[in-house]
Amino acid sequence: MKNPSLPFKYRDNIIAPATPPGTGAISVFRLSGPDVIEITDRFFVPKGKKKLTEAEGHTLHFGELRDGDEVVDEVLVAVFKAPKSYTGENSVEISVHASPYIQKRVLEWFLDHGVRMAEPGEFTLRAFLNRKMDLAQAEAVADLIAAETPWQHRVAMQQLRGGFSKKLKELRDRMVEFAALMELELDFAEEDVEFADRRQFARLLDEIKSTLRELTEGYRTGNAIKEGIPVAITGEPNTGKSTLLNALLNEEKAIVTDIPGTTRDAIEDYIILNGIKYRFIDTAGIREASDRVEQIGIARTFEKIKEARVVLLLVDAARLAADSRLCADTIRRLNEWKKEYPDKIFILTVNKSDLVTPDRLERLLSCFNALKGIHVIHMSAKRKEGVERLKELLSLLAGQGTLKPGDVLVTNARHYRALKEALESVRQVEEGLQAGLSTDLLAVDIRDALNKLGEITGEITTDDLLDHIFQNFCIGK
Amino acid sequence: MKNPSLPFKYRDNIIAPATPPGTGAISVFRLSGPDVIEITDRFFVPKGKKKLTEAEGHTLHFGELRDGDEVVDEVLVAVFKAPKSYTGENSVEISVHASPYIQKRVLEWFLDHGVRMAEPGEFTLRAFLNRKMDLAQAEAVADLIAAETPWQHRVAMQQLRGGFSKKLKELRDRMVEFAALMELELDFAEEDVEFADRRQFARLLDEIKSTLRELTEGYRTGNAIKEGIPVAITGEPNTGKSTLLNALLNEEKAIVTDIPGTTRDAIEDYIILNGIKYRFIDTAGIREASDRVEQIGIARTFEKIKEARVVLLLVDAARLAADSRLCADTIRRLNEWKKEYPDKIFILTVNKSDLVTPDRLERLLSCFNALKGIHVIHMSAKRKEGVERLKELLSLLAGQGTLKPGDVLVTNARHYRALKEALESVRQVEEGLQAGLSTDLLAVDIRDALNKLGEITGEITTDDLLDHIFQNFCIGK
Repeated sequence: MKNPSLPFKYRDNIIAPATPPGTGAISVFRLSGPDVIEITDRFFVPKGKKKLTEAEGHTLHFGELRDGDEVVDEVLVAVFKAPKSYTGENSVEISVHASPYIQKRVLEWFLDHGVRMAEPGEFTLRAFLNRKMDLAQAEAVADLIAAETPWQHRVAMQQLRGGFSKKLKELRDRMVEFAALMELELDFAEEDVEFADRRQFARLLDEIKSTLRELTEGYRTGNAIKEGIPVAITGEPNTGKSTLLNALLNEEKAIVTDIPGTTRDAIEDYIILNGIKYRFIDTAGIREASDRVEQIGIARTFEKIKEARVVLLLVDAARLAADSRLCADTIRRLNEWKKEYPDKIFILTVNKSDLVTPDRLERLLSCFNALKGIHVIHMSAKRKEGVERLKELLSLLAGQGTLKPGDVLVTNARHYRALKEALESVRQVEEGLQAGLSTDLLAVDIRDALNKLGEITGEITTDDLLDHIFQNFCIGK
Repeated sequence: MKNPSLPFKYRDNIIAPATPPGTGAISVFRLSGPDVIEITDRFFVPKGKKKLTEAEGHTLHFGELRDGDEVVDEVLVAVFKAPKSYTGENSVEISVHASPYIQKRVLEWFLDHGVRMAEPGEFTLRAFLNRKMDLAQAEAVADLIAAETPWQHRVAMQQLRGGFSKKLKELRDRMVEFAALMELELDFAEEDVEFADRRQFARLLDEIKSTLRELTEGYRTGNAIKEGIPVAITGEPNTGKSTLLNALLNEEKAIVTDIPGTTRDAIEDYIILNGIKYRFIDTAGIREASDRVEQIGIARTFEKIKEARVVLLLVDAARLAADSRLCADTIRRLNEWKKEYPDKIFILTVNKSDLVTPDRLERLLSCFNALKGIHVIHMSAKRKEGVERLKELLSLLAGQGTLKPGDVLVTNARHYRALKEALESVRQVEEGLQAGLSTDLLAVDIRDALNKLGEITGEITTDDLLDHIFQNFCIGK
């Protein structure tokens, strides 16, 4: 049963609670390791006659956990036999009554009988080490658990099911073939043979490059789905930024499922519209600003714009009416921004529309007809008029074109960095190839590119990398 | 599969989350009802080829939940076939990744496909209605989940495994036989036959009576285990009652398991010593008392003593030293209490021992040598000196003789009432028998006694009773 290819650490037996703590009908303990079935047999007295060690994999057994005379609980035990389990090892899942006492007793019993507490993410780490999934898939497990919106869920699920790592692995495998051929050429260096077809290789490099480029370009979208699309609310003091923010957030605070007890308490500065998450940048600043005189330096505003995907600029309708130069100033400012950041979405929001007559408002808005590629809306954030229109616009613009169901998206900053580096080293190989670099130098660059590609799917890992990835997992996963 | 003996309500399909809400590795949904396996088959795409309907009971199946094109999750499905399941019906348990989104989607899918949300305790109610357990066992499930101490756990587990209901059922069955014979006699009333041996019947009644008496007598202990042993802290104003209470509670507040995240937040006025729970009575009064002048009328103190099992009387060492009559007054008071409540445990606590010299303290304590059957200790609650000794004493006295591992204990107020009533009606039958009551009148009393006995184990139930019992269960159980 023991897998000799694993580091020693992973040949032992581990346990962790797999279900959330608290009150409920049942709690599940998960165990994995070479001896967990035998060990559980010493604690478990089945209602039927079969011992767990004699049971088939993927079967369920009802019985009692007994510590000497004490009946600790009536439980259901699921048995999985290596390699057909989540971790690839022998595994056991025990459903106990969710009493604090029982949970404590069960855990203590196993800790006293040769099983140790699992580290965070250790079950998934073992699944990776036993080649049940690649590294990107393992990382998707954490994303899947954290998913709150349909899109977050979809990209995590795509990654879990293989997603881009399948494609990358295939390309890398093909590159490995070329590398092998080139290494072979080195063995026959004096004979000046060419086993690796250079034109074919160039075509492969091109394919890899375009795949990597596609994936890195998808990161902005992928990251926006995972972390929320960043939205900046800007404008002069007292244009109603804080009121607008509250109007947007208030109704959307609770990301609630219908399951009793799962209302989220955490209030964060984001909303979810049509399954897409929007995250407001630097809202602390906005909230403070309502209390004291605001001092947004140009630098700071630019900072916010730089981070954002969508930029709202608020202007005060009454001030627009009173100051004839404000319209032209606003247009100039927006055009500068648009020039600097042509990819971002700018929305000019004429706020406090309740302070001017409808006729006047219409004339004020017409002044902005000169703006190209910038959306102009009006509202009274205070009276919550026009806020719905803004939401619709956000949902329409920021969602537009970014989300196609078939897309494979990169959501992970680590993958993004590795993809960028891989792209860089593939380019290096390409340049070397074009420049007629000698095979031995080319081989070095190729090996570098293979390493970079391998880091994403975990074919190349270090202990540090693994520790870093799995320490963010929850216990029991 | 449908069980025609069930009321219509229980022939449908139900679902509920079985694990606590919140973050974790997995969440489990539990389904029960005639069609749950077929319905799950429409949502579940197994990795193997077998459909769940073709699977054996007590097997586990890995695969995907798919709603049209969308992969909702990779899950593990446990299949149970009627009658071999917790409820006795076809059942399914689905382990999903514990993401809020997935939990919501899975629940919604089933609610949209002919499954309704289970009512609290409905799985256990169905188990009872399908004769998988009797009523007392069903009630024990809720107690088991709530158990915090080893003793609470032990009595709940004993009840779950049959406990006293097995014994009661057997006695009742024997009484039913006699009842049947007597009813038969009524059919032959004119012939003056006696099918039921009256002497044997008298012996059975005696046996039933002694069992019922034993069980009702165990209730005080059982209830103390379940609810905690009630302790009253009494004494004049400013004798340090509130300080003592805080000293006792402070260190013991967290009833913690070693499982990460399960620290209990709730602060209640109880402590657990050596696995036994002690509950302090009317501590709100004590806490208020430190803020304002206390006005404990004699009546109110007596009220507290009546409820308590252990009574602490605090006196102030400094006041004892200053007021020569206080010692005699205290002795008189305690002797009155002891006379009125001979079964209760009284502990005289000389507090503020730090305010007098050790010599003086010794002399003050010797004054209480006259007290018989009352424990005298001294302490400085403020300096936390002597508090440990009080805890040891509590643990020794209140635990003494009350807890024998083999004991079958009644912990449920409903059972206690029903047992008392049953005992009363058995006595009635006995009296009738001794008085030579006519068989038809005797039969009426017997039927009444049978009903009372049947209420405990659920052989006799009403919808009201069931509703009342199961509404206190958690969802998913």
